[in-house]
Amino acid sequence: MASQQTRPARGMRDFLPDDVRRRDYVIGVIAGVYRRYGFEPLESPALENIETLTGKYGEEGNKLIFKVLRRGEHESSGETDLALRYDLTVPLARVVAEYRGKLPKFFKRYQIQPVWRADRPARGRFREFYQCDVDSIGSRSMVVETELCAAVSEVLQTLGFEDFTIQLNHRDLLTALLVGVGIDPALHATALVAVDKLDKVGVPGVTTELVERGVSERSATALLDAFENPGRLDQLVGASELGGHAAAQIAEILTLADATPARGRIKFVPRLARGLSYYTGAIMEVAVPDLAGSLGGGGRYDGLIGMFLGEEVPACGFSLGLERILVVMGERNMFPASVQQASADVLVTLFDAATVPEALRLAAELRREGVRVEVYPEPDKLGKQMKYAAAKAIPFAAVLGGDEIARGEVTIKNLLTSDQQSVPRASVSASLRKGSSA
Amino acid sequence: MASQQTRPARGMRDFLPDDVRRRDYVIGVIAGVYRRYGFEPLESPALENIETLTGKYGEEGNKLIFKVLRRGEHESSGETDLALRYDLTVPLARVVAEYRGKLPKFFKRYQIQPVWRADRPARGRFREFYQCDVDSIGSRSMVVETELCAAVSEVLQTLGFEDFTIQLNHRDLLTALLVGVGIDPALHATALVAVDKLDKVGVPGVTTELVERGVSERSATALLDAFENPGRLDQLVGASELGGHAAAQIAEILTLADATPARGRIKFVPRLARGLSYYTGAIMEVAVPDLAGSLGGGGRYDGLIGMFLGEEVPACGFSLGLERILVVMGERNMFPASVQQASADVLVTLFDAATVPEALRLAAELRREGVRVEVYPEPDKLGKQMKYAAAKAIPFAAVLGGDEIARGEVTIKNLLTSDQQSVPRASVSASLRKGSSA
Repeated sequence: MASQQTRPARGMRDFLPDDVRRRDYVIGVIAGVYRRYGFEPLESPALENIETLTGKYGEEGNKLIFKVLRRGEHESSGETDLALRYDLTVPLARVVAEYRGKLPKFFKRYQIQPVWRADRPARGRFREFYQCDVDSIGSRSMVVETELCAAVSEVLQTLGFEDFTIQLNHRDLLTALLVGVGIDPALHATALVAVDKLDKVGVPGVTTELVERGVSERSATALLDAFENPGRLDQLVGASELGGHAAAQIAEILTLADATPARGRIKFVPRLARGLSYYTGAIMEVAVPDLAGSLGGGGRYDGLIGMFLGEEVPACGFSLGLERILVVMGERNMFPASVQQASADVLVTLFDAATVPEALRLAAELRREGVRVEVYPEPDKLGKQMKYAAAKAIPFAAVLGGDEIARGEVTIKNLLTSDQQSVPRASVSASLRKGSSA
Repeated sequence: MASQQTRPARGMRDFLPDDVRRRDYVIGVIAGVYRRYGFEPLESPALENIETLTGKYGEEGNKLIFKVLRRGEHESSGETDLALRYDLTVPLARVVAEYRGKLPKFFKRYQIQPVWRADRPARGRFREFYQCDVDSIGSRSMVVETELCAAVSEVLQTLGFEDFTIQLNHRDLLTALLVGVGIDPALHATALVAVDKLDKVGVPGVTTELVERGVSERSATALLDAFENPGRLDQLVGASELGGHAAAQIAEILTLADATPARGRIKFVPRLARGLSYYTGAIMEVAVPDLAGSLGGGGRYDGLIGMFLGEEVPACGFSLGLERILVVMGERNMFPASVQQASADVLVTLFDAATVPEALRLAAELRREGVRVEVYPEPDKLGKQMKYAAAKAIPFAAVLGGDEIARGEVTIKNLLTSDQQSVPRASVSASLRKGSSA
């Protein structure tokens, strides 16, 4: 039969065992911290009705949604009725609207699942990638923002990050600023898209782009100047009630965070804009020095659930990007040695056909004591079986020939040192533990 | 804004926290047992190139694949290029073909991920559901089948199932039988589809269907008779080399299994057919008395990887259905109490605005000691905060007013007994542990 294309689809990845172990380690740390903060797990389906997703992510986002063809008699119509989830926030908003009566007044959930975006694949950018989201629903208090920053800080510290910053800003502060420098409200959304590129293209580039987007050169210059000039910023922001209120919320988060693991991590960055359109209050983004782009971000989105429920429910969340965390941890060698363990603690070899049942019995005994055991699947030359174990970095091999069975013993070979010894059957697991800690 | 449809898409489900905790418990048991058997984790993308999946599952399967529309300029063409994975076996075959050189000679992997089928939703049948697969690649030895049955038995025993049977049969034995009763090889596949319905429609129903599918009434009767008559079966099967070899493999699995946790669990069931077309040897299916359908199944498929690699690689696997296991465990109340734990061990209340930082500091201290802490997000009447904790079954509330702060103490209220006591700040976590074990 002809062989087929075997690579994963474009922008998709297979995760071999070592990859999965690294991913599971990071996911375990994240989920563990979130649980200590009282967040509960939620999962939503990969496929949503297409109208649930459309109109939530802006024009660019809409184009990147993977759409699923209708089935059966409708298949040939080319129509689509389902789509793969694009993020975990819109599904959360739908879930909160659907189960509002069953959920606690303050619903704190985490959700760690893949999302799909038909983006052009690039280094570190994939079409299937995991988001690790944590959100608090139901309160407008800045304790919510503070606890989210604290939880994210604790996750990153637990993973070994020492040099991250949580950049903090507020959508209303940006609005007050844009109004203050005389930019028409109709141009605010487009202006923020340009501001979002400051890190990439610098002040001259953003000035040019702001003007192209219809902002006067004078306003553009005043805006970019205010980002660099705290006195001027305070003046512009303080001039409006909206700006004053936003500045007070920023100050409150900074004060409260001092009592949490986010202490010293949060930095007010007035030019931080965040791409998504649904944010309504504080916005946050995690930066580390050697990564263009962020490890994650989030903010307050008090209007999104209302799009499903018809009634406004306050909400704030944070999303960590698993893939970027893994990239940085890999480059910096941050994984503990225990993550890359061998697939088994011992290989039980098969001496000959007659001894197979006794070898299986030994494997069962050891597994009952928590030892991870691989059984070589067929009787073969012992040397070949040992070589197989060594290639898989399995530290020990157990040999159970007719002689050993008669004596009630097992020969244990340490594949690193080549030492071997016969031990009574009942003390094999103890001997393996001793040997591996020696 | 108008409220939108908020239910999950047809045949899809949202998993609220209690659901996720039950699912994670079962997945944890399954993965833990598989790891003790030396299986390693693998993950593959949800989306595969469409040609990877088509032609692997038979005509019925092809119809149930969710297909993804091409994007950008091709979107309006109605063409599809990607599809959601339909099972975990075909992606495994693709992965083995792609990474053959990087994988060990015997590749033992487990994979626990969702699959998607556009089936008509029914009780216990969903369009997104998890499969828990475990497969051994690279050996033709019956030790492989035996270890798979042992691992599955240990999973089910660990979950608390006492009454399961692993039904065992062999594709070549069925072939020998069909030949023996005079059924034309061209009709074998269609005949097995009818035989597969024996449990549902009984002997008369299957006889009728066999005849409708072109089998003579005489052959149909002989076949169904052989299933009930061991002497006749042996005679028919033993008459061919193929049948004799298959019977010997069945006997070998039964003998070897006696040395493993599958002891007494495996039953030779000559009418077991299994739906999928890719099986080539032993086939297995897990039955429990009060469930129509199975908890899982599997078998040997020595030809599938060759469809991708162009070279035959022996393989055998077993897939457990997470959703059915959950249904039966739910109906039988098999979940340990610890699975349905509250979202937090203690609620830290907020007394007033001035004490919020100290409350956050207490939360940080407790979390550092491994206590799961929810902080009430806003200062409010204490009674209201207590009521919130009680509604969420959080066992304790911590109160930290100005007086407590001055004395270096915290008031701990047991929400079940309404007892409360003031304890020194440093012994709060110990006091919570003592209180919850009392």
